[in-house]
Amino acid sequence: MLAQTAYDELIQKVKEAATLSSVGGLLEWDQQSYMPSGAGKFRADQLSLVAGLSHKKFTDPRIGELLSELEATGLGAAGDTPEAANVRELRHQYDKATKLPGELVSEWARTVSLAQDEWVGARKHNDFKRFLPWLEKVMDLCRRKAQAYGCKSEPYDALLDEYEPGASAAELVETFASLRQDLGVLLEKIRNAPRRPNAGVVERPYDVQLQRVFGESVAAAMGFDFTRGRLDTTTHPFCTGIGPNDVRILTRYNPNRLSDSFFGIMHEAGHALYEMGIEKEANFGAPMGEAASLGVHESQSRMWENLVGRSRPFWKYFFPQAQRLFKDALRGVSLDAFYGAVNDVKPSHIRVEADEGTYNLHIILRFELERALLLGDLKPADVPGEWNARFKKYLGLEVDKDSNGCLQDVHWSAGLVGYFPTYTLGNLYSAQLFQKARKDMPDLDSHFERGEFAPLREWLRDNIHRHGRRYRSGDLCARVTGKPLTHKPFIDYLNSKYAEIYGF
Amino acid sequence: MLAQTAYDELIQKVKEAATLSSVGGLLEWDQQSYMPSGAGKFRADQLSLVAGLSHKKFTDPRIGELLSELEATGLGAAGDTPEAANVRELRHQYDKATKLPGELVSEWARTVSLAQDEWVGARKHNDFKRFLPWLEKVMDLCRRKAQAYGCKSEPYDALLDEYEPGASAAELVETFASLRQDLGVLLEKIRNAPRRPNAGVVERPYDVQLQRVFGESVAAAMGFDFTRGRLDTTTHPFCTGIGPNDVRILTRYNPNRLSDSFFGIMHEAGHALYEMGIEKEANFGAPMGEAASLGVHESQSRMWENLVGRSRPFWKYFFPQAQRLFKDALRGVSLDAFYGAVNDVKPSHIRVEADEGTYNLHIILRFELERALLLGDLKPADVPGEWNARFKKYLGLEVDKDSNGCLQDVHWSAGLVGYFPTYTLGNLYSAQLFQKARKDMPDLDSHFERGEFAPLREWLRDNIHRHGRRYRSGDLCARVTGKPLTHKPFIDYLNSKYAEIYGF
Repeated sequence: MLAQTAYDELIQKVKEAATLSSVGGLLEWDQQSYMPSGAGKFRADQLSLVAGLSHKKFTDPRIGELLSELEATGLGAAGDTPEAANVRELRHQYDKATKLPGELVSEWARTVSLAQDEWVGARKHNDFKRFLPWLEKVMDLCRRKAQAYGCKSEPYDALLDEYEPGASAAELVETFASLRQDLGVLLEKIRNAPRRPNAGVVERPYDVQLQRVFGESVAAAMGFDFTRGRLDTTTHPFCTGIGPNDVRILTRYNPNRLSDSFFGIMHEAGHALYEMGIEKEANFGAPMGEAASLGVHESQSRMWENLVGRSRPFWKYFFPQAQRLFKDALRGVSLDAFYGAVNDVKPSHIRVEADEGTYNLHIILRFELERALLLGDLKPADVPGEWNARFKKYLGLEVDKDSNGCLQDVHWSAGLVGYFPTYTLGNLYSAQLFQKARKDMPDLDSHFERGEFAPLREWLRDNIHRHGRRYRSGDLCARVTGKPLTHKPFIDYLNSKYAEIYGF
Repeated sequence: MLAQTAYDELIQKVKEAATLSSVGGLLEWDQQSYMPSGAGKFRADQLSLVAGLSHKKFTDPRIGELLSELEATGLGAAGDTPEAANVRELRHQYDKATKLPGELVSEWARTVSLAQDEWVGARKHNDFKRFLPWLEKVMDLCRRKAQAYGCKSEPYDALLDEYEPGASAAELVETFASLRQDLGVLLEKIRNAPRRPNAGVVERPYDVQLQRVFGESVAAAMGFDFTRGRLDTTTHPFCTGIGPNDVRILTRYNPNRLSDSFFGIMHEAGHALYEMGIEKEANFGAPMGEAASLGVHESQSRMWENLVGRSRPFWKYFFPQAQRLFKDALRGVSLDAFYGAVNDVKPSHIRVEADEGTYNLHIILRFELERALLLGDLKPADVPGEWNARFKKYLGLEVDKDSNGCLQDVHWSAGLVGYFPTYTLGNLYSAQLFQKARKDMPDLDSHFERGEFAPLREWLRDNIHRHGRRYRSGDLCARVTGKPLTHKPFIDYLNSKYAEIYGF
């Protein structure tokens, strides 16, 4: 068989499995947006069936044969041509997938679908007991999954690899330790700073319809294509790529604070631009049509949300528009006061609303807890106590209720153990990449001041998006910035921004 | 193998196929409601894949074996126990499905998905030429499908049977001929009547948000359960049952006329009550969990829309509410004037907005055209000319543009040839069933006057809904009303209502 023929057959087969998976993506999006409340049980059946069929398609032994054939040829053997990258990453994914029994895949899909519905109810009623049996079920499934994958070191690595291929818990422990130390120093400086902004400026009534209009207009300015995507409302904000031209954002609105939905939309639109910038139409289902990793994905969302969205040049352009829309809330407010308000640093309970200075402490806490849960060192029933104790230690705050604590995030109900660290990796990547973008385009600020985001978007498309999973995250970072990932650009960025605002 | 064991295995297998089909249902609902415009091509791939897999599951030879086993036992042999009915109807469906090649099923799903998107564009721009190649493709697929099914008489019967099991074109020709004759007499009386209502009362600006609120409140009063369903906006109104507790209505609003969306919502809610009244949870995927036929389905929607929704007792209760909501439009309007306005009879172009007197002429026209298309007696390119000529003949109106003519309905783009006649069957069933309901509950009008719809809904549940497909439509009608279906109750109902309004 000719290598090209085998390659074409391989791509055809994985595309079919991915098309089926994408149907699962729509089922999940619908569950989080429009599904009637009574339909949850059947939705779990649908998701379970689709996940099982998709897994069966992807683990078809024929895919293994084709991969072996291709690995022996020039097309798939080595290097980082698109074809070789597809073969390399499909081998990685195939070897993992074939270790999972089909029953586990179906049971997983059903359980996490039901668990998410239970989580929504438990969070709403601040009722950890209601969620506990589901947390136990999910952690048990996670352990079974990690065991099926097998791993050289600890079980956490097997799960982390799904989101950040090649990363390890040991590396994270090291990176997080230095990061936590430097953040401690920074937060101390802020605590003792001579001045601080007034966050009250964004904590006023903001009409929800106008928030939506404003958020959509900024997403459009960023380059979000509304003929290839849409924006809806949900409990837990996220962005999902359902197909090559179908990228959907879900967000939630707080009628008494502008920043939650506004930065939420910029964040998810950052993810969406990545999904829209990958050459999906030509590569759907193949690794070249996928993001490099969730860390890199998060680097895009956090870059737009923070390095762009919380910058002075950005608001120089958008603040007058905000003032026209939100006449009452922003009457007499200066650009400086507003810029300060969106950069207020203050420990708070909810991760997705946390400022850039304290955000990563939320992640480090979750990483430690879920690692302990997986190792069996922490029991699900003890999560609230342990969460609250560490929260007090890292952020200096008492947790008043579990819905402001361990019940706040969807991830554990969705089986996404090993996912949280990618948020911090994303923050670190975003700063290192943005430093390089700024070096390549010294006039970036003046673009932003004029509402021009195409230069940054195109830079990201060229350097990140269009490569899909051709390079793994660490290699991609080194390729683009010339250096391996460190937390220094991130700490430097925060220090320099906060020094100006807080005058330390 | 024990009969019960075989039966359980059979039900399990068809349930899985139906679960996969239900995922296709969500893909279609999403395509008509929230899907971004650029995602149409990939949506066709998703639908095609899911349809192919579901067909493969349903045509699994094991299902044939189990049916044969059961047909030889007491459980599945005869009578109309739920088990025997399931075996009887599954045999009918299985024998049909196994005649269709899988490729045809996948091609069908892809083509009609793309054709529907093209139809939306063609209708919007009044551009029949744009739609023509798709009409040709769909008619070709319909012919191939009819051929694959095979049939004793003409190809139309093979398609009609999918929607109205056991019905035939020859019977329809006969029923429609007498119906058309009697309608002609009735319309002549109306044309020469001494008085006529002023339809202008409902043809005024009606706020769309308030229309939605009013429509939803009536649906709720009818018993539509919003925890098991929802209501959204679309181009072509429909109702779809996605799962046992997931029934969705799509409607469209006309800011200058109340009746389109209002009766549209009552219509679709009538369908939804049927879906919600079938014991789906226990019978999902089996015929006992399906509607008897589309004709019976339509009898439910038309009964609520017309026999209830256009009745005087109904408006005695709801008109004061409408007046409170639509202050400007209904200021100084009397109940009598309003009741007359919603019962105005006047030939018009759009079927879904047609009055009860002329509606069935729209159906007869479509039935004749699609039958001729299938036989090859009419070419797709000649449809506009033939449509317009017959429209003039049957309804006395010139068709000003194809979007008011042959482009108005979604059905042909969706491959639903053989579907239209079920609308008229539905009208006839609705009148015959309602006559019996009224006989069983002589105080029905006084219930309606007090906004009480539970008695009718429960009567329908007991007599129709809960039986699923236990009885075929004709048998069900005879069982409930004691007589085979005739058009007499329908004509009597119209004559008596219009005689009072028009004073003939």
